[in-house]
Amino acid sequence: MQKLKAKIRDIPDFPSPGIVFKDITPLVQDPLLLKECIEELIRPFKQESITAVAGMEARGFIFGSLAAWELGVGFIPLRKPGKLPYDVQRIDYALEYGTASLEAHIDAISAGDRILVIDDVLATGGTARASCELIEHLGGEVVACAFVMELGFLQGRNNLTSYPIHTLISY
Amino acid sequence: MQKLKAKIRDIPDFPSPGIVFKDITPLVQDPLLLKECIEELIRPFKQESITAVAGMEARGFIFGSLAAWELGVGFIPLRKPGKLPYDVQRIDYALEYGTASLEAHIDAISAGDRILVIDDVLATGGTARASCELIEHLGGEVVACAFVMELGFLQGRNNLTSYPIHTLISY
Repeated sequence: MQKLKAKIRDIPDFPSPGIVFKDITPLVQDPLLLKECIEELIRPFKQESITAVAGMEARGFIFGSLAAWELGVGFIPLRKPGKLPYDVQRIDYALEYGTASLEAHIDAISAGDRILVIDDVLATGGTARASCELIEHLGGEVVACAFVMELGFLQGRNNLTSYPIHTLISY
Repeated sequence: MQKLKAKIRDIPDFPSPGIVFKDITPLVQDPLLLKECIEELIRPFKQESITAVAGMEARGFIFGSLAAWELGVGFIPLRKPGKLPYDVQRIDYALEYGTASLEAHIDAISAGDRILVIDDVLATGGTARASCELIEHLGGEVVACAFVMELGFLQGRNNLTSYPIHTLISY
């Protein structure tokens, strides 16, 4: 996916000095390449009887809802605290500095559901791992986690050893 | 779209007492109904030479990216301040209590672009109007604004008199 890599823009010093942010907006503005990207993202899971795709706020909403659409299944939004209006299950997790939380509606996932977790980038894996554990708390099975890109130097896979990981490009 | 209405859940007193929040998560978890919803959302604009769909963070990312996908055009995310990594155009706008801001990447829209603005709900119209003005600042033309639902009692259309409005269900 070399042409995918060519569409992801490096933004130096965002959100803070020393960080090179990978900007996916040029990709989502290119409908043909985005289509290829989503097809590659879901390709290994077409025969896996996925029942829903879960995606994390906010960029995960774009890739996750498109992946769900192409798989013909529903989309489950995982959100920051206080955003989902109905009864929620919440998970708190550690970040490099401080903590964060994610919520899912308690009726979004049922026992036996086979969930594909999608986000744009696998960085430290903290958010992805919390997402998987949240899904499991609700009785769902995480079939795999799929990401458009992986920041290999952050070793996020070490946080996700219990789950198959699928990524399209790596840095 | 009576069955669409049946899938939108009333949440009393969210996010604050006296407000009845319209929860769209049951809709996005129903792939067949979501498909019908997106088709209805874009139907009036299929012959309008739309060049991109713009959607507001965060629920607008779900409906907007699916609408863009179905129209075969790119998706432009409009975000809260500090989230978009590249150079941005920003608009500040008044809310009932206080102010809010939206940002778009300066290279997301070019002169002559024909943009469809999509969000889940038309409430007071403040955010939608700011989105339209932001697009116009960048040289784009707002062809129309489309919303899954409209809270008619908030008279958001009064804020959007310069643009065609398309909504699927109304409260």
